[in-house]
Amino acid sequence: MHRTGLAHRTATEDATAHATADATAVAAGAGDPAALRALTAVALEALADGAARRGGPLPAGGPEEVARRTRALITPLLPEEGVGAEDALYDVVRAAAEGAADPADPYCVAHLHCPPLAVAAAADLAASALNPSMDSWDQAPGAAVIEEEVTAELASLVYPREPAPDAVITSGGTESNLVALLLARERAQARGERTVQVLVGENAHHSVRRAAWMLGLPVPVTVECEEGRMVPAALDRALASLGGGPVLVVATAGTTDEGLIDPLAELARVCRAFGAEMHVDAAYGGPLLFSPELAPRLHGIEEAVSVTYDLHKLGWQPVAAGVLAVSEADSLRYLSLSADYLNADDDTEAGLPDLLGRSIKTSRRPDVLKIAATLRALGRGGLGRTVEHCVRTATRFGQDIDRHEALRRRTGAEGISTVLFRPVAADRLPDEAGDALVAAIRRQLLSEGLAVLGRATVPDSDGARRVWLKATLLHPRTTAGDLTGLLQLVVERAEFLAGQEPAPRVGPQPEPLGGPGPAAATRLQSVTL
Amino acid sequence: MHRTGLAHRTATEDATAHATADATAVAAGAGDPAALRALTAVALEALADGAARRGGPLPAGGPEEVARRTRALITPLLPEEGVGAEDALYDVVRAAAEGAADPADPYCVAHLHCPPLAVAAAADLAASALNPSMDSWDQAPGAAVIEEEVTAELASLVYPREPAPDAVITSGGTESNLVALLLARERAQARGERTVQVLVGENAHHSVRRAAWMLGLPVPVTVECEEGRMVPAALDRALASLGGGPVLVVATAGTTDEGLIDPLAELARVCRAFGAEMHVDAAYGGPLLFSPELAPRLHGIEEAVSVTYDLHKLGWQPVAAGVLAVSEADSLRYLSLSADYLNADDDTEAGLPDLLGRSIKTSRRPDVLKIAATLRALGRGGLGRTVEHCVRTATRFGQDIDRHEALRRRTGAEGISTVLFRPVAADRLPDEAGDALVAAIRRQLLSEGLAVLGRATVPDSDGARRVWLKATLLHPRTTAGDLTGLLQLVVERAEFLAGQEPAPRVGPQPEPLGGPGPAAATRLQSVTL
Repeated sequence: MHRTGLAHRTATEDATAHATADATAVAAGAGDPAALRALTAVALEALADGAARRGGPLPAGGPEEVARRTRALITPLLPEEGVGAEDALYDVVRAAAEGAADPADPYCVAHLHCPPLAVAAAADLAASALNPSMDSWDQAPGAAVIEEEVTAELASLVYPREPAPDAVITSGGTESNLVALLLARERAQARGERTVQVLVGENAHHSVRRAAWMLGLPVPVTVECEEGRMVPAALDRALASLGGGPVLVVATAGTTDEGLIDPLAELARVCRAFGAEMHVDAAYGGPLLFSPELAPRLHGIEEAVSVTYDLHKLGWQPVAAGVLAVSEADSLRYLSLSADYLNADDDTEAGLPDLLGRSIKTSRRPDVLKIAATLRALGRGGLGRTVEHCVRTATRFGQDIDRHEALRRRTGAEGISTVLFRPVAADRLPDEAGDALVAAIRRQLLSEGLAVLGRATVPDSDGARRVWLKATLLHPRTTAGDLTGLLQLVVERAEFLAGQEPAPRVGPQPEPLGGPGPAAATRLQSVTL
Repeated sequence: MHRTGLAHRTATEDATAHATADATAVAAGAGDPAALRALTAVALEALADGAARRGGPLPAGGPEEVARRTRALITPLLPEEGVGAEDALYDVVRAAAEGAADPADPYCVAHLHCPPLAVAAAADLAASALNPSMDSWDQAPGAAVIEEEVTAELASLVYPREPAPDAVITSGGTESNLVALLLARERAQARGERTVQVLVGENAHHSVRRAAWMLGLPVPVTVECEEGRMVPAALDRALASLGGGPVLVVATAGTTDEGLIDPLAELARVCRAFGAEMHVDAAYGGPLLFSPELAPRLHGIEEAVSVTYDLHKLGWQPVAAGVLAVSEADSLRYLSLSADYLNADDDTEAGLPDLLGRSIKTSRRPDVLKIAATLRALGRGGLGRTVEHCVRTATRFGQDIDRHEALRRRTGAEGISTVLFRPVAADRLPDEAGDALVAAIRRQLLSEGLAVLGRATVPDSDGARRVWLKATLLHPRTTAGDLTGLLQLVVERAEFLAGQEPAPRVGPQPEPLGGPGPAAATRLQSVTL
């Protein structure tokens, strides 16, 4: 599939040799800047074309239709002879853009999946073009310094009063939690203990249990939650019932389902009483610390030995931009490693910085460049105000739902920027049928390409677990007013799917997942024709 | 530090509000394409400016000087109020480029650190701008299909005769090896065994032992090597001496030090005789499979249960572009995971693809986009010829060294594209002093900003372990002729540092690491003035 608007190779030239020569242009300074410039322009063109053809927050038609259209663009993926850099790039980027669930669209609110800032995406291009690898100084002399500055700032954000905190950059909360548990295990073993027992709330992200599994730790003990937050008295009981030995309590600041924050200061007090260590998974909530107004919600976080937080959630970075902050730099020593080809002793003695102990990876992309550009672009003030914007948008969106007679909001403890709600039509059905309706509304909107809403199964005010629609508001510019139409779509689809009206207003005959609804088809057609 | 050539904000406007508003432009389709376009232009400008100021394969002056210059550009990194997107982006990208060890420079050959193709870097921009996350269909509808196509091709490259091979994309060899050991542990436990015993050659990458440590496996048994390759008879003895139980033998196809390939077919025979499984770490060597001429060097690899290979080494991708191929798709089932918010059962039943079991990560960057663009741009033919080019360059570079009377090459088993050599001047010194001279030459050239050579400590032909200079040739366009001057630099620095001549030709008074040599200072000045 070739784009129009650019001249193609003439058939008379040796297309094969040309395609290979063309495609082996390298990106960075000593390479071919003109090639990178030209191909970047192609990528931007393909992004725009793909977005225009998509025409909404995600492609219409459901999985099979998306797969068909994507394959038509990119196959044969590995031909015997290549199609050349420009055509291949255009095809793949257009397919990715046309098939994207675009978090920059206000109606794309399913997950902790943020729209990346343009400044971050542009800085990330430099990471790709220069390709510094963060495992030795002689692969990343400047990037290593940038990382040093960034991790120092990110560590003091969490631990402003510690003399020597530190932080490492990770691929995200899952890796941060893995490293936190690994460090806890090693601390325990350094004290002559065999292992560490992890305690974790019912509300914790799955990655905590997964990390324990990977590291060969005992199955974590689950601590009871109420209203989605860990109960300090329950933690007290759980710790009391253990037979002693090293313990790591993992608290959550920003649950995946509701954005709820555990009572960190109280949990820290309980931990202290038992000599237990606390780790906080603040993958979602950590960036509240940028805001003087919101930081108090994380009171107590500074008592944790380590804190997970992501800048690809609140922080508006492209994935990956994970952080693990530790209260004492020295606690990272268990990651240190000696490899003659990367950090020979005599090189280190002669002053070559040793970068190898900063990750469980070896070759490592400098995800820190985009973070650095963003921190400096926005400053602490700008970051704080942008976090506040997302929190405020969620509050107002919740109020809009409360005012809507056909919708009901999940109320309870205050989340960060997540709102759960369901149509009243679902409440009128028996529990199972109501849940099925909620799930079907979400799939219907996905299939039509009209909205990307999330889902969560959490207790209702009567204690019964029910399925809810979830909106996770992370867009730095969207306001609640931009989301009025989204609520209307939900109500219309609920009425239609519940059989109360013959057809929703936007499209007369939406089909089940697997075929596009006519509304989507119309919308798509109007773009492609 | 502001760039020249672009108008700055006027002092009269509300600079703070402007900087924040400006910097929160989002990247993707529904965001602000104009912002991404404008900022991409800034990044390209900063890349070019930084490369021009660097003026060579890496910045001159050594670590302290590079740190000073980098900090001057990027601090304050987290100001109270931001400096705006354009300025921050320019500063950080220029600092990264000015402080880069640029693998696109022919004299940057220290590591398995390749120059990325422009087509791959440009495709990676789309990953950053669109930010699809590969953990659920509704975050990456199109990217998920692209990954399916790519992993199918990458799996059949290794296992062309298996009915259902599979592959997952990883952050690199370290993660691939970790997952390979994890899968082996789970296979063993599924058979009721407690754990798996790993056997690994002396020549293996450190990540194999590190993975065993992380996963809580027994310390790996080391198998003897000769001439840098695992000895099948030694493996036989090691397996015979074990008391039974599940075993994973990890062989290497492309050692980090020398690019040597273990005798895979023979090792596979030994494994079969003992019912042991074999994993091959082909992080370096795997892409030889693209070339019909070179693929036979990996004969036997298809008998492994799993194979690690990287496309950010031979493959010319920016980090990360790791692959773990498995002979049977079903063996990945231990990675599968259920999380209601990402792959609820009723969603999966309704046809929403479940992506969660394709990684140990949760949020995951679509590294597959750049791989897809590259495979389609070059085709199997173009990739194969580019691998052959690197191998040929290494052979010819070795021949040039053999012809050079002041240099001596490490000869022995044939590597992939790695050449070890040392100046004859080092051989004339006592062993320890000779090694110190070799290491000092490398550091001297780093400090002067003139070349990035690697090092390796491996046995010489008399069996004594000595320090060698290492050139890892991965550049798709560099030829041996481009490297004549590099050899001359080594000889001159050797003579100078060995005290045999008063001064090297390129600069009269090179200083030890920490201060720039005059040659470098001159070169740098000529660019910046």
